[in-house]
Amino acid sequence: MEIPDTMQAVIKAEAAPGFALSERPVPEIGPNDVLVKVRAASICGTDLHIYNWDKWAASQMQPPVTMGHEVCGTVVARGTNVESPDIGDFVSLESHVICNTCRFCRTGNGHICENTQLIGVHRDGGFAEYISIPAQNAWVNPDDMPLNVAVLQENFGNAVHTAFAVDLRAKKVLVTGCGPVGLMTIAVAKATGARAVYATDVSDYRVDFARRMGADAAINAMKQDVMSEVMAATDGEGVDALLEMSGAPAAIRQGFEVLKPGGEVALLGVVGKPFEIDWDKYLTFKAATVHGISGRRLWQTWYQGRGLLNS
Amino acid sequence: MEIPDTMQAVIKAEAAPGFALSERPVPEIGPNDVLVKVRAASICGTDLHIYNWDKWAASQMQPPVTMGHEVCGTVVARGTNVESPDIGDFVSLESHVICNTCRFCRTGNGHICENTQLIGVHRDGGFAEYISIPAQNAWVNPDDMPLNVAVLQENFGNAVHTAFAVDLRAKKVLVTGCGPVGLMTIAVAKATGARAVYATDVSDYRVDFARRMGADAAINAMKQDVMSEVMAATDGEGVDALLEMSGAPAAIRQGFEVLKPGGEVALLGVVGKPFEIDWDKYLTFKAATVHGISGRRLWQTWYQGRGLLNS
Amino acid sequence: MEIPDTMQAVIKAEAAPGFALSERPVPEIGPNDVLVKVRAASICGTDLHIYNWDKWAASQMQPPVTMGHEVCGTVVARGTNVESPDIGDFVSLESHVICNTCRFCRTGNGHICENTQLIGVHRDGGFAEYISIPAQNAWVNPDDMPLNVAVLQENFGNAVHTAFAVDLRAKKVLVTGCGPVGLMTIAVAKATGARAVYATDVSDYRVDFARRMGADAAINAMKQDVMSEVMAATDGEGVDALLEMSGAPAAIRQGFEVLKPGGEVALLGVVGKPFEIDWDKYLTFKAATVHGISGRRLWQTWYQGRGLLNS
Amino acid sequence: MEIPDTMQAVIKAEAAPGFALSERPVPEIGPNDVLVKVRAASICGTDLHIYNWDKWAASQMQPPVTMGHEVCGTVVARGTNVESPDIGDFVSLESHVICNTCRFCRTGNGHICENTQLIGVHRDGGFAEYISIPAQNAWVNPDDMPLNVAVLQENFGNAVHTAFAVDLRAKKVLVTGCGPVGLMTIAVAKATGARAVYATDVSDYRVDFARRMGADAAINAMKQDVMSEVMAATDGEGVDALLEMSGAPAAIRQGFEVLKPGGEVALLGVVGKPFEIDWDKYLTFKAATVHGISGRRLWQTWYQGRGLLNS
Repeated sequence: MEIPDTMQAVIKAEAAPGFALSERPVPEIGPNDVLVKVRAASICGTDLHIYNWDKWAASQMQPPVTMGHEVCGTVVARGTNVESPDIGDFVSLESHVICNTCRFCRTGNGHICENTQLIGVHRDGGFAEYISIPAQNAWVNPDDMPLNVAVLQENFGNAVHTAFAVDLRAKKVLVTGCGPVGLMTIAVAKATGARAVYATDVSDYRVDFARRMGADAAINAMKQDVMSEVMAATDGEGVDALLEMSGAPAAIRQGFEVLKPGGEVALLGVVGKPFEIDWDKYLTFKAATVHGISGRRLWQTWYQGRGLLNS
Repeated sequence: MEIPDTMQAVIKAEAAPGFALSERPVPEIGPNDVLVKVRAASICGTDLHIYNWDKWAASQMQPPVTMGHEVCGTVVARGTNVESPDIGDFVSLESHVICNTCRFCRTGNGHICENTQLIGVHRDGGFAEYISIPAQNAWVNPDDMPLNVAVLQENFGNAVHTAFAVDLRAKKVLVTGCGPVGLMTIAVAKATGARAVYATDVSDYRVDFARRMGADAAINAMKQDVMSEVMAATDGEGVDALLEMSGAPAAIRQGFEVLKPGGEVALLGVVGKPFEIDWDKYLTFKAATVHGISGRRLWQTWYQGRGLLNS
Repeated sequence: MEIPDTMQAVIKAEAAPGFALSERPVPEIGPNDVLVKVRAASICGTDLHIYNWDKWAASQMQPPVTMGHEVCGTVVARGTNVESPDIGDFVSLESHVICNTCRFCRTGNGHICENTQLIGVHRDGGFAEYISIPAQNAWVNPDDMPLNVAVLQENFGNAVHTAFAVDLRAKKVLVTGCGPVGLMTIAVAKATGARAVYATDVSDYRVDFARRMGADAAINAMKQDVMSEVMAATDGEGVDALLEMSGAPAAIRQGFEVLKPGGEVALLGVVGKPFEIDWDKYLTFKAATVHGISGRRLWQTWYQGRGLLNS
Repeated sequence: MEIPDTMQAVIKAEAAPGFALSERPVPEIGPNDVLVKVRAASICGTDLHIYNWDKWAASQMQPPVTMGHEVCGTVVARGTNVESPDIGDFVSLESHVICNTCRFCRTGNGHICENTQLIGVHRDGGFAEYISIPAQNAWVNPDDMPLNVAVLQENFGNAVHTAFAVDLRAKKVLVTGCGPVGLMTIAVAKATGARAVYATDVSDYRVDFARRMGADAAINAMKQDVMSEVMAATDGEGVDALLEMSGAPAAIRQGFEVLKPGGEVALLGVVGKPFEIDWDKYLTFKAATVHGISGRRLWQTWYQGRGLLNS
């Protein structure tokens, strides 16, 4: 395949709000990298933070940077050391580029690598015709996987990582927050043997969607009393597990309120700022176990996700 | 309800092969017991050992004993200390009567209580019109649960305890041995998110049944090569988990042969005598984790089983 | 031994501040109880709350109640069902009386029994000559155990439960809060293979005591900068585990601040009211695992504590 | 430092018993490798198998190969990609060279990498003046670590990996087999809070050594009855954990015989051939959990070992 010298790319051009469409050189690849011709990319909440150039974005980025971290495409070139994937393989990209050498990487905890670079933030991303990325970040898909599934695999990985942090088998589970990742988490919980899955959100559209994804009960927290609905649905016992995907303090409090003593919690939702919580009641006295979830386990979560998609 | 003084019971009358039908007094209940009017009971392999009065049976029993340990029925009387279940409740019975006071019972490990009594073996069982049993051994069912489900809950508990000993989510699983418990284990593995479940047996009838229970591949080990079939089905990788329900040395060896390095195993099948195994290859070098499974966790497994039945 | 009809007891006489010394009947025992002649009892922070009759105390107690929940003594009588302990045994008392029948008790989680009664709060305690208590709450000590050790076993159990909630082997550990339980936790962490134990408190006396208990570094948080001291002591890496015994929001924040990504936390300290925390930074993004600790695991913690005392 | 072109090396020269001293070129280094000037190397049982050219050795090696896999030395050159260790660092070598790309390496399970190469077996080792090895296999020691400690770190890693496979805190532990790794395992178990450590061997010298390493009881299995000695030492309860380092079927049987129901086992000893075992009694009915141990976890075990050496 002929690879051009330049390409069109959506970039963060300068330290200010907005994106720009720009002509940029097709990126180089190092000996351990692959060059991927992008077939699809999706937009995520992070991209909006960058577009708006908020405080977080300003602290992370040094423009110009090509945007985009949810990407799939075809391998068109590879470095001299690369044995897999092959040229022509259809791949989804893990967006976290890790160092392989820090104490976390060396102990199977690459998801918290202390030198992590996020594509589309710390290095060039995939809202472009081509992207250069370490070969180990390219996850080979079946050739016939639909583009919209392939491009969502990162999000799906977040859902898998969250749901797999707790053993949900035969458990009653509450999912707070029904955005795309929350909805996929409902499906993962159902597929892995949860006894019942309840969901909350503040949007009727999402509450409906949660029901279609298999939630046994879906509650609009603006219109219904979460506490009494969940306690009624669970014969007054509360839930065994809470998967917190909303980042909303009210939802966090409601979730812990209906959590059984000794229950387990996985936290993926981002709140954005400190907030007040009854630490004694919700964590200590409740004998709760709480797991903060960061990204995907590299590459265990990808293997688990593939396993679920195949089942 | 009028409770008579005597009842018909199938008993082990003397230390010799055979059973007898006999008139016996309706059993007394102590302050922590309930009296259950039996509605259904099923026969299990253990009962055949006792019928034949083999070495194991002779070492365990002191006739006369009323037979039967898979039992469900209705509570008709209860001791002065009993608060639950209620008179009239439809219950299945946990067959292991535990002491509540030994070091195992006191640390949540009642399933390995060192003073366990098995009903129908060490104390009177349920092949009779009535059985007296500690209230804590009576598990309340919904009134509309079919009798054949209620009476199988003990077996189902074995399947749940075995399948829950390993995290099967997104895993490739081999079940060796497709008797009633093995078949239920296939269903449990599928319901709790296994990526694929393979099954082996030596009977075409059972292999067929395994397929109907959801096995992705079911192999007759007398007619097909288990090793090559499983390796083909798993792209040469082998399985992540082995659930051994057969007690057959050949099946055990085949199962470990196709187990991935680092894989997990749960053992429920009873071999009956020592046999030769390549310990280095199958356990040590393979970095396998092996869980011996004994009975059901009291009463965690029952809660889990109820959770699954409801999901 | 002659047991009198009445005894002296320190009681909460009425719903108001203060305690009273009163003559009360020696308590009755039920069939599963023992009567213990008290040899020593210690005062705990909870007793001060009750003395002051604060909001918590008022919500929990219905005077008159005999005070005291840290107690040891000699068994002088036992109910008809009791097989252990024996008359004459020297016992420490577990202060939580549990129901044995709720869903938590039935699954090995008696420490979060939903019907827990605390002696000296919900039922008569041990600031008296005699106390009646379920036999299962009496933990038999060696006859030659010093009284001050025997009476501290409950506190020691809290230290053990907290330290055993996290695998501290070869880990760098921070203990925030060096009251009696915190100090014992330092000793437990050292005895179970922690690589290094750091401790913080706001009292010079306690900081000194922490050093004598084996802390590799002990920091007065009022005089030194916890963050820079701990980071210096850990070559800039932070600690693998945090054992939070202080209940002080500042200490909680400092502890999470120096916790490594992927670190583990056990919470025993009671804050007393809601407070503000950077949930994203300390829990979610840090991929922390946090264990709320409630009481002692019944009776696993007691066995573990005995194991440590013997080692 | 001047690096010569050739060096002296102890090699397996041909497919027959024996070793040879030979002049060989100083090895090349690739971009991710370091060249280490050997300061000390030790001989291990594996080397004897190779010397004797037994069946296992013949199946693994293609002479000529430089021998030696327990090695420490000084880094004297490094490839272009290497950032750590530095020239002049004193390093111990992990003997397993792993691929970093297989499904095991990619999920934090490099110790069971399917492309593992063992130095001194599958590639040139360290019974030579220089060895070339991937930078990630060089573990930096403090400059003042004694040579005999540095060279034993691999063995120490086996002891750590075995002892850390089971939570030994407050437990009664039996170590079967008191060779160098077994003896270090006793020390690790004591240092990580085991309540008591018992040891068996068939050599008086080793039994004595076990006692000096801290074993609470050390038993010569040729002269004493292991079963009765261990049961007496444990008040008839047996041990909570078995660490099997002997590879002797008799020791394995004795170890399982005295293991408590529900106990845990870690297996490092290599038997060498299949043997007969009472699978039902020792694994299934005993509800044992058995962990096969292979090598060291890369590099978690090295971090843990460093932690212990520092504590």
